[in-house]
Amino acid sequence: MPATLHFWFDFASTYSYLSAMRVERDAAACGVQVDWQPFLLGPIFAEQGWKTSPFNIYPAKGRYMWRDMERLCRQRDLPLTRPAEFPQNGLKAARLALAIPQGEARAAFSGAVFAAQFGQGLNVSEEPVLRSALSAAGVPEDMIDRTADADIKSSLFEQVARAKSLGIFGAPSFVVDEELYWGDDRLDMAIRQAAAI
Amino acid sequence: MPATLHFWFDFASTYSYLSAMRVERDAAACGVQVDWQPFLLGPIFAEQGWKTSPFNIYPAKGRYMWRDMERLCRQRDLPLTRPAEFPQNGLKAARLALAIPQGEARAAFSGAVFAAQFGQGLNVSEEPVLRSALSAAGVPEDMIDRTADADIKSSLFEQVARAKSLGIFGAPSFVVDEELYWGDDRLDMAIRQAAAI
Repeated sequence: MPATLHFWFDFASTYSYLSAMRVERDAAACGVQVDWQPFLLGPIFAEQGWKTSPFNIYPAKGRYMWRDMERLCRQRDLPLTRPAEFPQNGLKAARLALAIPQGEARAAFSGAVFAAQFGQGLNVSEEPVLRSALSAAGVPEDMIDRTADADIKSSLFEQVARAKSLGIFGAPSFVVDEELYWGDDRLDMAIRQAAAI
Repeated sequence: MPATLHFWFDFASTYSYLSAMRVERDAAACGVQVDWQPFLLGPIFAEQGWKTSPFNIYPAKGRYMWRDMERLCRQRDLPLTRPAEFPQNGLKAARLALAIPQGEARAAFSGAVFAAQFGQGLNVSEEPVLRSALSAAGVPEDMIDRTADADIKSSLFEQVARAKSLGIFGAPSFVVDEELYWGDDRLDMAIRQAAAI
């Protein structure tokens, strides 16, 4: 029986958008199930002394990343609209993704948030954008109230702690039986490992 | 006529080893010519405030990189021996690569240096190792004396300045008609662009 692919993503991460747009299709083609694992890179970056995305701290790397995204999105026929603000605050989106049980609705909501942010350039820290994503995923919009709940807040803290203990330092990351893969460029390899087990 | 692929590499870079071991074969298969462009990442990292490799500064990233190298080398049937020291001092090797005219001998010398370092775990700052690489490339061993020459030193300074002006921030990097690709993961895309022109 194939292993589960754990897809660790941060809603502010451009390369997580690339993976979010294909992980279900590519994994399903190999009979692999995907668990969507939202987390926050911010606290992990902060421990390294970074107060924002490395793509902002290191301008050459940032310029390159946007160009690379353009090329990859064109290749994959994906829309790309660079949001006015980068990185966006993905805190509420991450809490909502955790509040929705693991499964199709969480995947659909998360995909809708990524598509809104990087496909349309919308700000996913705004409640109307999140409500649309909930609605697109068939989740009642009053789920939005869960972002203030203590259990969801602590659940997100635990996700960040789990990410750290798995050795995660960037997003997207994929974990198959404790084996870590970093970056959209490693998604295929992670799926192959999961399918082979 | 296909464009030339400019392969920018730092001898201390693990992922440059991966590209060095396949770039000639993969490019030739598409009728693309490779120009080997040695440079030093050290001065570029220093401008970002890094005194050593980011793989040492950020331990989780470093642990992951070595594991990723293990997986990729196994996949490609490449030997991998982790050198005792990382990153190694590639200054003399870079000067020698520049002293050898662009062409087969420079490619062969550079490949031999990478294979010695990451295939066998040897220290490529040592002259006997460099002499062996020269010899393997059919270059007279007294070329080693060129590492002290002023014109070669300034040629390497110019390479670093060119790398910066091309937007290079890591290695390996590939440049095709001013379009920049970063990482062994982008070599195929760079070759396809060069072949299509």
